[in-house]
Amino acid sequence: SPLFSCSFCSMPTTLLGQNLRPSSSSTSSTCDVLLMHSFSLSLSISLSPSPSLSQGTRDYNPKQMAIRERVFNTIIRCFKRHGAETIDTPVFELKETLTGKYGEDSKLIYDLKDQGGELLSLRYDLTVPFARYLAMNKITNIKRYHIAKVYRRDNPAMTRGRYREFYQCDFDIAGQYDPMIPDAECLKIVHEILSELELGDFCIKVNDRRILDGMFAVCGVPDDKFRTICSTVDKLDKMSWEVVKSEMVNEKGLSEEAADQIGQYVSMQGGMDLAERLLQDAKMSQSKQACAGLTDMKQLFSYLQLFQVTDKASAQKVRTTETQVMVASAQRNLLNERLRLTAELWNAGIKAEVMYKKNPKLLSQLQHCEDSGIPLVAILGEQELKDGVVKLRTVHSREEVDVSRAELAEEIKKRTSDV
Amino acid sequence: SPLFSCSFCSMPTTLLGQNLRPSSSSTSSTCDVLLMHSFSLSLSISLSPSPSLSQGTRDYNPKQMAIRERVFNTIIRCFKRHGAETIDTPVFELKETLTGKYGEDSKLIYDLKDQGGELLSLRYDLTVPFARYLAMNKITNIKRYHIAKVYRRDNPAMTRGRYREFYQCDFDIAGQYDPMIPDAECLKIVHEILSELELGDFCIKVNDRRILDGMFAVCGVPDDKFRTICSTVDKLDKMSWEVVKSEMVNEKGLSEEAADQIGQYVSMQGGMDLAERLLQDAKMSQSKQACAGLTDMKQLFSYLQLFQVTDKASAQKVRTTETQVMVASAQRNLLNERLRLTAELWNAGIKAEVMYKKNPKLLSQLQHCEDSGIPLVAILGEQELKDGVVKLRTVHSREEVDVSRAELAEEIKKRTSDV
Repeated sequence: SPLFSCSFCSMPTTLLGQNLRPSSSSTSSTCDVLLMHSFSLSLSISLSPSPSLSQGTRDYNPKQMAIRERVFNTIIRCFKRHGAETIDTPVFELKETLTGKYGEDSKLIYDLKDQGGELLSLRYDLTVPFARYLAMNKITNIKRYHIAKVYRRDNPAMTRGRYREFYQCDFDIAGQYDPMIPDAECLKIVHEILSELELGDFCIKVNDRRILDGMFAVCGVPDDKFRTICSTVDKLDKMSWEVVKSEMVNEKGLSEEAADQIGQYVSMQGGMDLAERLLQDAKMSQSKQACAGLTDMKQLFSYLQLFQVTDKASAQKVRTTETQVMVASAQRNLLNERLRLTAELWNAGIKAEVMYKKNPKLLSQLQHCEDSGIPLVAILGEQELKDGVVKLRTVHSREEVDVSRAELAEEIKKRTSDV
Repeated sequence: SPLFSCSFCSMPTTLLGQNLRPSSSSTSSTCDVLLMHSFSLSLSISLSPSPSLSQGTRDYNPKQMAIRERVFNTIIRCFKRHGAETIDTPVFELKETLTGKYGEDSKLIYDLKDQGGELLSLRYDLTVPFARYLAMNKITNIKRYHIAKVYRRDNPAMTRGRYREFYQCDFDIAGQYDPMIPDAECLKIVHEILSELELGDFCIKVNDRRILDGMFAVCGVPDDKFRTICSTVDKLDKMSWEVVKSEMVNEKGLSEEAADQIGQYVSMQGGMDLAERLLQDAKMSQSKQACAGLTDMKQLFSYLQLFQVTDKASAQKVRTTETQVMVASAQRNLLNERLRLTAELWNAGIKAEVMYKKNPKLLSQLQHCEDSGIPLVAILGEQELKDGVVKLRTVHSREEVDVSRAELAEEIKKRTSDV
């Protein structure tokens, strides 16, 4: 009987030594995007060598896909609860877009063969394509997530789950905001996801580049060595201090004395307490830069407490987020109260947003709801706080009603169940 | 102030002429997969040339992503309703896996640069990787969908929505089954999706390669020209008959007489009626091959009528499908009744499967439920049909209860709401 070949989609006749024959016929829509085939496999003939995967890549079988889907759904649900949009970019970029962005790691970039036309490379991460997207579209403010595969010509330990093709789940908040508020939300998100995935205990490490640079300066690292010493310090996650120190001294030419001083600082661990301790540190406090970083770090931890992270370790237009409510205020000095209420709502499973500004105008908070189709606003004021209520405003009708704080989440769910 | 560089993830200091500075700090988990950044963009400095996309590719902005998500959800919901699993494969394969599978279109394959190691190419479709997956894992029976991007170095008309990087949504049923049953389900799925997406009127074209080959034979196409004439006929969707005929005669060297005879047949349109007419056709009926194809085509249309396509044009283990119920029978000659009931359930939004076999054993139908975790079986027999009921069996407890046919979907929903 004849070999199978779909006349509509150039279906190959012989695949990898398996002769594909129609169970008796083939049906295929001519639509290029939705392809359906139904065929039986005749395994009797097997001429070509057994097929294999390229190094560092993997298939996902149905069981692995079911688990991946559950994990991604947890992550995406969290991103959406925090009012993020999503974008997608091509898997390859112009080579020049990626050139010079990854330092020593540039050698790990996959280039496409020059087959005439442009020089292309596979994306190495999602951050550079994101920056290219922002620049091309002149976007300065966006909270977006992007879940996609990235490519690195590395020799990873596949037994430890590392591959040349792997997923990254990026969540970025771009824009100019009051210090540390978006940073705190990012950490809240990491905390929520890692908790919900039930992966066991975890530790989130936070960093401020100014603390690192200030520390380098007071330890006597020459200015022109900051970048390269930084790369070495980065390896502390995977290697012992001895190996890292040896690379600093023997390969990068740092003095042993400076390396030892760095060693003292990088061994320290802590949260708010460490930031306060380092602000008092005789050497660190000499660096203006470090002090600025440490002061912000204290601010960050105060927001994290409000978000309860430290405790436990509309309309007819196309909406790009699923945010149900905006937590707002008409009065000054209620940032902390807004953050606290926002966290209450997130914890109750409500998709909520809050402005990253100490004292935003009510009008600009309402305008944001109009622009992005958020149907409800939860407004806090001194009086409401005193009464234990929240003023719940319907953006569309401008109706306002006082709702007791204990019933707020239920009321929001009820009102947005049909959105 | 210093340029920003994340010490944890090699975040670039200068992206495309935008200086990225921390709003005042950056936080980043060390986890390679979950990356969070929060930074402010300083747009004041713009030194590098304005970035751009590579030819034939596009970004998806948040609005386009929201629409894409809705469309994909509709498609995936349908695939799952029909009991399909999903798999994923790498974006590149060994070059040799793709070599020789795409005929004239091989020149459109993207090769990766030889940077040492294996020779790789970007996937051109999802069918060859699927065949590679089946062969590597020695799988002969699977119903799977795969939604992913594919790559073609074409010069597509981007204004008409065609790109070098684009999505395909593949749904394939591989295995040996009784003729035309899986084919009918594939068409049911296309019909459901196109209806639910509300894209307006549509026409699904079906084909049987044996009819095409038989028609070539009786029209006097030499055996060694079948393949190439087939490629030309394929262009009828995009070009007029005159252009196609000219290519056959002037480029492929077919006689004008043979081309004219082909022209007569390819202009015919119809369903069951056309299959019957061609079976009576003096010339076509001379080809055994064509007759076999036409007979199966009649069979296909009879199943499509049962599926109502022609009318309108558990357990603790990891489940890879979400199928709620298997439509089964203990007696012979109830295939049509099983298909009819299955369609009733699909139309009521139930995720249902049916065996692609005329007279399967009850035991093998129950075994399939055990193997894939399907919680319920709807069993049809002569008595049940007479009484207007269905025997609903709980796989786990083996309990059976008669449910009136009108209440079956509701009962299944009730019993699987917590799955």
